[in-house]
Amino acid sequence: MPISVHAVVFEDFETLDIMGPVELFGLLQQHYQVQLYSLNGGLVSNKHGVCIQTKSFSEMHMNDQSILLVPGGIVTFELIKNQQFLDQLKTLADQSKYVLTICTGSSLLAATGLLNGVKATSNKMAFEFVQKLNDQVLWQAQARWVIDGKFYTSSGVSAGMDMTLAFIHDTQGEKVAQLCAEEAEYIWNSNPNVDPFCKVKAD
Amino acid sequence: MPISVHAVVFEDFETLDIMGPVELFGLLQQHYQVQLYSLNGGLVSNKHGVCIQTKSFSEMHMNDQSILLVPGGIVTFELIKNQQFLDQLKTLADQSKYVLTICTGSSLLAATGLLNGVKATSNKMAFEFVQKLNDQVLWQAQARWVIDGKFYTSSGVSAGMDMTLAFIHDTQGEKVAQLCAEEAEYIWNSNPNVDPFCKVKAD
Repeated sequence: MPISVHAVVFEDFETLDIMGPVELFGLLQQHYQVQLYSLNGGLVSNKHGVCIQTKSFSEMHMNDQSILLVPGGIVTFELIKNQQFLDQLKTLADQSKYVLTICTGSSLLAATGLLNGVKATSNKMAFEFVQKLNDQVLWQAQARWVIDGKFYTSSGVSAGMDMTLAFIHDTQGEKVAQLCAEEAEYIWNSNPNVDPFCKVKAD
Repeated sequence: MPISVHAVVFEDFETLDIMGPVELFGLLQQHYQVQLYSLNGGLVSNKHGVCIQTKSFSEMHMNDQSILLVPGGIVTFELIKNQQFLDQLKTLADQSKYVLTICTGSSLLAATGLLNGVKATSNKMAFEFVQKLNDQVLWQAQARWVIDGKFYTSSGVSAGMDMTLAFIHDTQGEKVAQLCAEEAEYIWNSNPNVDPFCKVKAD
């Protein structure tokens, strides 16, 4: 039975944040089954011209293996004020075995309080924003991705693919992760300490 | 006025083939406007759990700047037999200033005859398939992507992002391409001759 990957989206989600990991999990259909969800279900669009069909959070069937994927985007600067969304996200994250955030997806999780005392990272251009949002999170300024317990948090956009392959590596083994990267012809940066974009923040 | 990027999809399209380039063009909204299209419009889904809303080919408004994006996927092995699709794709490609194919998207274009005598590449695991499909195409076995006239063709899946950044470089300049890669925190393989996956085919 494949493991459920519940991919969350919202209006103006960042396309690649979610579609990069969806591709990689999607290549491993013997292991994973991906489904896209939003707070109320239905069509969800973004500024990149993408409009996708989703199920509602209430239709998400959790079990003890479920994986939650949370993307980011500039819209998270506003979405952190949506208490109904945050409350439901917190419940879903609590019920998931693993939670993977990409880019400023970690700001949403930080806003729920679930990352308090947890090591995490985020998009390097939004780093001050996430630090101010919740200083109880152990924000890591130089990291392509960070693992702490059930939480995998990545840097911006494309970093989500490196992190997803690391997650696949950790949970399915190196061979599966390598094959997945090869099938996607993806040049995998498999070292979480190699973060070429942390300098962007310093400039 | 932003340049129109017409992104084609079909049932069982490969997610990242199209969503990687859509992200990169989408980050440059002052330069590009992306819209997704399918033969008949409406919802188009794939095996990765992605279901997207599209306009129909007949709603595509071309002008002398239009860019056509064509993804691949295993389904292209069947789609090359759909003459109605190929005829319309040929018309759209003829009318576009540039045509960018990702992965086996080049097989669709090869099936129209438009790549005859043109240098092109494709997914390295599907290389025999494309060679047999049309031996009048000048298939390049070792290339992350290939440029020949108006045609940009990339290797598998993730290679589409490297190619798209190269296209942005060629048409908008190096600074714009570098900023786009940085915003996406994408580690850009900017050398088309660096193709780590050509060995996959030889194994």
